[in-house]
Amino acid sequence: MLSRRNPQLNAHGELIHLLSIEGLPRAVLHGILDTAATFLAVNDREVKKVPLLRGKSVFNLFFENSTRTRTTFEIAAKRLSADVINLDIAKSSASKGESLLDTIANLSAMHADMFVVRHSESGAPYLIAQHCAPHVHVINAGDGRHAHPTQGLLDMYTIRHYKKDFTQLRVAIVGDIVHSRVARSDILALATLGVPEIRAVGPKTLVPGDLRAMGVRVCHDMAEGVKDADVIIMLRLQSERMSGAMLPSAGEFFKHFGLTQEKLALAAPDAIVMHPGPINRGVEIDSAVADGAQSVILPQVTFGIAVRMAVMSTIAGNLA
Amino acid sequence: MLSRRNPQLNAHGELIHLLSIEGLPRAVLHGILDTAATFLAVNDREVKKVPLLRGKSVFNLFFENSTRTRTTFEIAAKRLSADVINLDIAKSSASKGESLLDTIANLSAMHADMFVVRHSESGAPYLIAQHCAPHVHVINAGDGRHAHPTQGLLDMYTIRHYKKDFTQLRVAIVGDIVHSRVARSDILALATLGVPEIRAVGPKTLVPGDLRAMGVRVCHDMAEGVKDADVIIMLRLQSERMSGAMLPSAGEFFKHFGLTQEKLALAAPDAIVMHPGPINRGVEIDSAVADGAQSVILPQVTFGIAVRMAVMSTIAGNLA
Amino acid sequence: MLSRRNPQLNAHGELIHLLSIEGLPRAVLHGILDTAATFLAVNDREVKKVPLLRGKSVFNLFFENSTRTRTTFEIAAKRLSADVINLDIAKSSASKGESLLDTIANLSAMHADMFVVRHSESGAPYLIAQHCAPHVHVINAGDGRHAHPTQGLLDMYTIRHYKKDFTQLRVAIVGDIVHSRVARSDILALATLGVPEIRAVGPKTLVPGDLRAMGVRVCHDMAEGVKDADVIIMLRLQSERMSGAMLPSAGEFFKHFGLTQEKLALAAPDAIVMHPGPINRGVEIDSAVADGAQSVILPQVTFGIAVRMAVMSTIAGNLA
Repeated sequence: MLSRRNPQLNAHGELIHLLSIEGLPRAVLHGILDTAATFLAVNDREVKKVPLLRGKSVFNLFFENSTRTRTTFEIAAKRLSADVINLDIAKSSASKGESLLDTIANLSAMHADMFVVRHSESGAPYLIAQHCAPHVHVINAGDGRHAHPTQGLLDMYTIRHYKKDFTQLRVAIVGDIVHSRVARSDILALATLGVPEIRAVGPKTLVPGDLRAMGVRVCHDMAEGVKDADVIIMLRLQSERMSGAMLPSAGEFFKHFGLTQEKLALAAPDAIVMHPGPINRGVEIDSAVADGAQSVILPQVTFGIAVRMAVMSTIAGNLA
Repeated sequence: MLSRRNPQLNAHGELIHLLSIEGLPRAVLHGILDTAATFLAVNDREVKKVPLLRGKSVFNLFFENSTRTRTTFEIAAKRLSADVINLDIAKSSASKGESLLDTIANLSAMHADMFVVRHSESGAPYLIAQHCAPHVHVINAGDGRHAHPTQGLLDMYTIRHYKKDFTQLRVAIVGDIVHSRVARSDILALATLGVPEIRAVGPKTLVPGDLRAMGVRVCHDMAEGVKDADVIIMLRLQSERMSGAMLPSAGEFFKHFGLTQEKLALAAPDAIVMHPGPINRGVEIDSAVADGAQSVILPQVTFGIAVRMAVMSTIAGNLA
Repeated sequence: MLSRRNPQLNAHGELIHLLSIEGLPRAVLHGILDTAATFLAVNDREVKKVPLLRGKSVFNLFFENSTRTRTTFEIAAKRLSADVINLDIAKSSASKGESLLDTIANLSAMHADMFVVRHSESGAPYLIAQHCAPHVHVINAGDGRHAHPTQGLLDMYTIRHYKKDFTQLRVAIVGDIVHSRVARSDILALATLGVPEIRAVGPKTLVPGDLRAMGVRVCHDMAEGVKDADVIIMLRLQSERMSGAMLPSAGEFFKHFGLTQEKLALAAPDAIVMHPGPINRGVEIDSAVADGAQSVILPQVTFGIAVRMAVMSTIAGNLA
């Protein structure tokens, strides 16, 4: 039944693809975070190589270029001892007129075990998961504005690491929410994990009002948005996705919604500051905050490798 | 003596390079197919990692871009536990004016064990095999219109898998034969393996008449060409290599030589349909055929990995 | 104290980064050459895979394209069993406006163990070594006109291999010295290892007079420069870095400073001829010399892999 509703889960409710945070039970989320913790526990500085994916072939299918994200998956897969194949799809058979589904069928026939998919169109990873061979597991590494579930999970890992309990938290997500697949994934994960107060903070052009229907508190004033927050997640201003009237000037945006030490002082004294990177210093965030004591931006990166290792080893162990 | 005539074989008649099907004895071809079968036999769904090339360095030298072919060799080499180095030669020292042979000499001096060579000029892999250090083995991954021997071998593997015996078969190769290194390699392999009837089917502009001298039956009529055939190998229409009068319109080509269910019905009832990919749906082949019960296009891809593993492990084991 | 003056050495005087030959004690240089010899000694034809960097992540950060150099480091790291991540930095986050130091901080947070850095600006590897996390080791793979220390070390390995003793040698470095990071690294290494006579040979435009201050003999006449030399290091004419009046015509340069058999006959009878590659035949060097009995250009390439393995395993074993 669960599997009828959610293609990510098999008949036993186990994760076989990671396409979105949507519809994943709290236990599945905590299971991944627990597994990630084991990869960091060995030695907080160095994740040793483990043979969990030895002999498996992980294909990085990046229909949209993202060296940074591709690198984190490549490292995670190699630390699990997988063979990693990077495919620059844009340059590949696509240019010979082969359809997406034919490409997928061919790669499946090469006995791929896992596809890590980045695509500019929302839903592409779902389409691939529906059509690939049953022995292939799919991970969404970001599709359009839709979802970026491993970023969502690493954000949850980070919050759990510093705050332990989700059920008493105020979390403020600040900035360009409308273009952010990270925001969407974070909101779904926070809600599933029982966070009582989720705030979406930013100008009207960048914060969709319909978030209220998801139980999110929408704030168009920064002071109100960050007041007493335990966690502040700053988003990247995605100028490359905006045009004309929608695009605020960097200076204007920083003045109203950039995180400075003054604004951070309104939050809870032990608030942590997060950002999915790469950061725009002086646009979303002041350098003093980004490099300050409350910033956990670099630990997020470290946790991200462990979380991706956890996702890969979890889904590879579950049969479709 | 053999080695005098064929640079692919050492003094013991063992394969040390794979440059072309031409001149390879039937026993060598069957030997590779037998070895390929062992890589699939372990478990038809999953080729486990084997240590046969552990510590060996395989260089993918792609002077012509082909992500698809490069990927199949990369997977095959990694499943054999080799270290794989992908060189985008076009961007490399070549641009600093270094000659092909100097590049090859330098890579040999890095203790390369194998070069997988793709080149737009016919004969380039021969030149490399003649000039590289004796410890380096060369595989031709497609040179101009000349040869694509691993495709030829995987096609033979596929035919043997489904038909068992070569000596009673009618095999039709259909389409753009004049531009096809696959056709050339297939014809040589089929002849060596004892296929009594090989047909080349297509319009006069795309099927060279001199194939008759090789014992091939040339058919410019599709119905005649596929009648009672046991194996139909459709070729990709290489529009990118044609110009002007030679280039048929896709619709015109499909009408006369595209494989539909009606035309397939003229073949033997248990005929198999092959294609080297990527397919042009509705140009060479109808989707109903490509995805139909007689299509073995995706098994070809699977067998292709095993055949490339077999070629690599075979030549690496033989001394020059 | 040493570590105060030289960021490449830890408090025990052990090498933790390789940024330049400058300031490295003779014992450190010989230590690397001795280690390199062990990687070649196993079997002069084949360097077997060793597990010294198993589980370590080596990042190739090439801000400037150099397939050739990147390949040598990739092979060296893979033979040490490291996981290698190639980053084409130009296409990466840099394009999203991330600063060099933010990129480095992020990669460090992914638990990188080693950065191999190629950069068009002199000093970039120093900057990275100063700002990366203490667990990361940095190797300079060429920065601007400044240094190319692994090339310097492999040149020293080559000289020691053929000449045994540095303290009786006359070494001539010929050609485009002003643009050459190789020349700079070689001169520093030769001086440290006790070579009594180092000559810089070339036209006035390409040989800076201030080399005399480093104890180098400057010769603007080729015959004088190579006379009785035991080692001749030819440099690549870096036309791509020259403009206008500075750029000699290839023919003119070859006439005066190209190494022919006639000019080589002026050197010691057992002189060796070196070149960092890729060679410009007929510009710096005649083919008869490049391919002749005294040329050790290809052995340099072989030794280069072993020397890079030695540098990587040495610094990885020393704590910051």
